Amino acid sequence: MHATAIENLIEKFEGLPGIGRRSAERIAFHILERMSADEAKSMALCITEAKEKIQFCPVCQNLTDTSPCKICASPKRDASVICVVESPEDVSAIESTNEYNGLYHVLHGALSPMDGITPDDIKINELLLRLADGKVKEVIMATNPTVNGTATAVYISKLLAPFDVKVTRIAHGIPVGSDIEYADKITLVKALEGRQIM
Amino acid sequence: MHATAIENLIEKFEGLPGIGRRSAERIAFHILERMSADEAKSMALCITEAKEKIQFCPVCQNLTDTSPCKICASPKRDASVICVVESPEDVSAIESTNEYNGLYHVLHGALSPMDGITPDDIKINELLLRLADGKVKEVIMATNPTVNGTATAVYISKLLAPFDVKVTRIAHGIPVGSDIEYADKITLVKALEGRQIM
Repeated sequence: MHATAIENLIEKFEGLPGIGRRSAERIAFHILERMSADEAKSMALCITEAKEKIQFCPVCQNLTDTSPCKICASPKRDASVICVVESPEDVSAIESTNEYNGLYHVLHGALSPMDGITPDDIKINELLLRLADGKVKEVIMATNPTVNGTATAVYISKLLAPFDVKVTRIAHGIPVGSDIEYADKITLVKALEGRQIM
Repeated sequence: MHATAIENLIEKFEGLPGIGRRSAERIAFHILERMSADEAKSMALCITEAKEKIQFCPVCQNLTDTSPCKICASPKRDASVICVVESPEDVSAIESTNEYNGLYHVLHGALSPMDGITPDDIKINELLLRLADGKVKEVIMATNPTVNGTATAVYISKLLAPFDVKVTRIAHGIPVGSDIEYADKITLVKALEGRQIM
């Protein structure tokens, strides 16, 4: 019995990560009752603008609105270390520790034979290309400590064996089976410090 | 270290009801990584459209894209009963029981002297105007069973004393101190059935 425009709005929010029917209703009513028309317009504009402007960084494959991304372009970052993660959220989590000064490589997923995700489906080739000039001395495998994440780390470490590069694995300071994205900062720092050669 | 467009997008979601920083990030990355450009555009359009189209129903003050709203306009609803609630979410919760067939009146808040919310700040006058023609026989006070909600119910029941109308209060089947919006359907039905003359 909601008005159509309200129902449409609720449906757009329902199904976003962590948002069920009730949360979607609360958000829709918040937009309708508490936001000004300008705020709502600005929100809508942000969605379309972000979608238009954001692309994959041609170097690290992270989401970016500059090419290359700010991290890859920064002269202050240590270009001899690449930290390989599954998702842009993981970059954001590690950056928030302010303890890592190298570059990243975002795979956009992990190998998962059960789901049909093969090496060609994630950004592994793009990582190999970055090692060609020999400037990279260490690759830190910071995929999630799950079955798929670990398998991906092992697979990539084998691929990197021919290169003159140290391959390390982020330490299991992070509880096994959980997600890097949810780790607290201290645990993430410990995990980075305790990395082992694999 | 997020790209500006991503950061802007995250900030738009952060602060919506129930959404903190991490949830906002997850939603932003979901939009950027998993939604098609068309889906994102459609979402943005829904927000601006809803905001443009949705207004207060001139009769019951609920949010609507028709004038009057679908419930007020429906010949199937019992126009002799008005259920007074604090918010559009409460209408939605009661409608979902499919057990109430009267009309509604949305106050858009409750009296709260501590917060400076006086009778002029909520839609009480609009309720009184609806009783002028004498067609309404019962007003059900379904404000939340909180201090402010109860005070609002008592205040309105006193205002309605001169009218030839039965004023009832939704039963305390709903746990005192909680919110109508979160009540399960059976509790809501019991609360409606057990209403008492006040």
